[in-house]
Amino acid sequence: MRARNAFYAQSGGVTAVINASACAVIETARQHPERIGKVLAGRDGIIGALNEDLIDTSRESAAAIAALRHTPGGAFGSCRYKLKGLEQNRREYERLIEVFRAHDIGYFFYNGGGDSADTCLKVAQMAQASGYPLQAIHIPKTVDNDLPLTDTCPGFGSVAKYVATSMREAGLDVASMARTSTKVFVMEVMGRHAGWITAACALAAENEGEAPHILLLPEVRFDETRFLERVKECVTRYGFCAVAVSEGLLASDGRFLAEAGTVDAFGHAQLGGVGPHIAGLVKQRLGYKFHWAVADYLQRAARHIASKTDVEQAFAVGRAAVEMALSGKNAVMPAIRRLSDAPYQWDIIAAPLDQVANVERKMPQEFIAADGFGITAEARRYLAPLIQGEDFPPFRDGLPVYVRLRNETIKKGLPQFVI
Amino acid sequence: MRARNAFYAQSGGVTAVINASACAVIETARQHPERIGKVLAGRDGIIGALNEDLIDTSRESAAAIAALRHTPGGAFGSCRYKLKGLEQNRREYERLIEVFRAHDIGYFFYNGGGDSADTCLKVAQMAQASGYPLQAIHIPKTVDNDLPLTDTCPGFGSVAKYVATSMREAGLDVASMARTSTKVFVMEVMGRHAGWITAACALAAENEGEAPHILLLPEVRFDETRFLERVKECVTRYGFCAVAVSEGLLASDGRFLAEAGTVDAFGHAQLGGVGPHIAGLVKQRLGYKFHWAVADYLQRAARHIASKTDVEQAFAVGRAAVEMALSGKNAVMPAIRRLSDAPYQWDIIAAPLDQVANVERKMPQEFIAADGFGITAEARRYLAPLIQGEDFPPFRDGLPVYVRLRNETIKKGLPQFVI
Repeated sequence: MRARNAFYAQSGGVTAVINASACAVIETARQHPERIGKVLAGRDGIIGALNEDLIDTSRESAAAIAALRHTPGGAFGSCRYKLKGLEQNRREYERLIEVFRAHDIGYFFYNGGGDSADTCLKVAQMAQASGYPLQAIHIPKTVDNDLPLTDTCPGFGSVAKYVATSMREAGLDVASMARTSTKVFVMEVMGRHAGWITAACALAAENEGEAPHILLLPEVRFDETRFLERVKECVTRYGFCAVAVSEGLLASDGRFLAEAGTVDAFGHAQLGGVGPHIAGLVKQRLGYKFHWAVADYLQRAARHIASKTDVEQAFAVGRAAVEMALSGKNAVMPAIRRLSDAPYQWDIIAAPLDQVANVERKMPQEFIAADGFGITAEARRYLAPLIQGEDFPPFRDGLPVYVRLRNETIKKGLPQFVI
Repeated sequence: MRARNAFYAQSGGVTAVINASACAVIETARQHPERIGKVLAGRDGIIGALNEDLIDTSRESAAAIAALRHTPGGAFGSCRYKLKGLEQNRREYERLIEVFRAHDIGYFFYNGGGDSADTCLKVAQMAQASGYPLQAIHIPKTVDNDLPLTDTCPGFGSVAKYVATSMREAGLDVASMARTSTKVFVMEVMGRHAGWITAACALAAENEGEAPHILLLPEVRFDETRFLERVKECVTRYGFCAVAVSEGLLASDGRFLAEAGTVDAFGHAQLGGVGPHIAGLVKQRLGYKFHWAVADYLQRAARHIASKTDVEQAFAVGRAAVEMALSGKNAVMPAIRRLSDAPYQWDIIAAPLDQVANVERKMPQEFIAADGFGITAEARRYLAPLIQGEDFPPFRDGLPVYVRLRNETIKKGLPQFVI
């Protein structure tokens, strides 16, 4: 069996650990030169494949590739670009196969969330239909933790650790000042439809009265009256009230509470601003002094406080993707299987892509406290292991050292393609 | 000379390292039992002194006090409560002396910013005028870095490290996605009148094109046209534009660009929201997709990414405060004196409080780049040492372990006082 090249691309919102998966793909591929030639990375994700804009990762040193393990963001660029269905846009799939053929790509590694799993599956189907030999493997990544069949999604554990740490720290700050200053603190976190990140904030509290006191999850429609009552109760009882709110919080009519009015390339609404909205409401109705924070990209880029478990899982799914390809698997995703909670033990299994694509995993109802403002012990048991361990990046001059790759592209051989 | 008790209080906005100063005061005092009896801490700052609400720190274990060094927030509570001038409010100063007398307090350690320096000076004067023997020492603390006579203010270096780290990380995130997604990222940071924190964001960039590309400093009036031109230029040249904006950015007419319309106990306007405002402007005028973050309390509570230099300085000024008191000094503040930039060398000197109180140190003009959107090499030389070194707190179960003190108060002996 001769060596064929591999294609790797990052898709959708990047994370603190997606490059750890890239690192694993490239390092593992380099261990199998008899089977895998070059790993070519798409510049800016799948767009790089369509444009034949292919980064030659063999030009990067072993040290640079190793440094990907501790570098946040997407080292080759990512994109929000969803290929339409095969029927509507056969042309793009054909182009992909054409580019793969031109560069002898036998392995397609697509590192992303639910939309990318769908694309990956379609590429696998298209290759099969065209008689082009290709193994398409999806590598899970999303801070939203909303992929099915895997215990968690690489990227989520680090965001969870960041938001829980931040909530614990800000909570101490507010608690010290509450007597004469801020009484209500609101932190807005990511999570468009699933409340996993908001739920993770709850890990900050170990004892009664500690921040956060209230979670506003996207799974629970916002009830203003009950919320304000609870805020008042917390301020009375604990002196202050810390709230974690999901960007995707829904009003009672089912609309996003704070909608910026714009949509991204996937047709999703661009959210932001529910934190200040909630804080303003508290001020207006209860008169409490407030502060609010919106962590935004800070949370998903915070490699400096990444979860060691998350980094290891991101690496493990990257390595497993290559191993699955080498063992002949196609249209699968390496998924994390939990074997035990404490100690947290897990292994990697192959999940069929047709069961992953376009399935959004929401928080199970039994993870949400009866009053809707917190999480259950079961949720805590699930979440706690995911933030375990620290994996600090190297620092120089007081700041984390992140690698920038050369990102040299190979020579194009095909006519230009208009997306 | 018999031992007398000490009073310690935290004032104003707390920081990631103010407890390191508290740790130093208590540990150093404990080393001098022949001169210093108990260290009594004001619950919620100076209000604790007025209310005779005094925490007996001798009830805390050595381990708990040592853990203060790595615990953010204010361990005894802080407050925004400014004593008025002696003429307007003699009553409160008299009450303080009365409480000090009742508890044999011979040392007054007040840990805060400019307003607290002023209070500390007045307490010293009042004690002197009343013939009450007291040594009043102010311990510098403020993330705003706006105290005079000291190279830097403990608290600032850690915020500087946090914002520079966050900007570097978020910058990598945005750079990876800019082709099809967010092109402009705005991060709002603290700094009401002085742009030190915003300036520190610039440390994130080591090479041309790296985030941040634009600083919006409170020292430079906002010029919308020039700003938008620059944003466009950055997006064209680098593919994206990262902006750090001070909460205290002023419009061309000198008003705060985003004023929440409320004032705190010191009569300062409560700001917040300039980040989304600027981001919205970019969207509206240039049409770029944007994201914004408001770090708010996260930045000043982020002990997990504290600057080792800052922690050491916070500890050093606390220790020096006790040593100065023991050597007979009064109405002074331990100030940090820079001896060299690289390697950063510093020592502690005694700064007279009458030269500290009510003087706000702004960024020198020569620290601001000619175009107003960045900092100079001189500013970088000043800032760089302050974020050096890491001093990670201990972690347990994936989160930093912060101490909670028992905070038991001593028995009151005086009639109640109505503030």
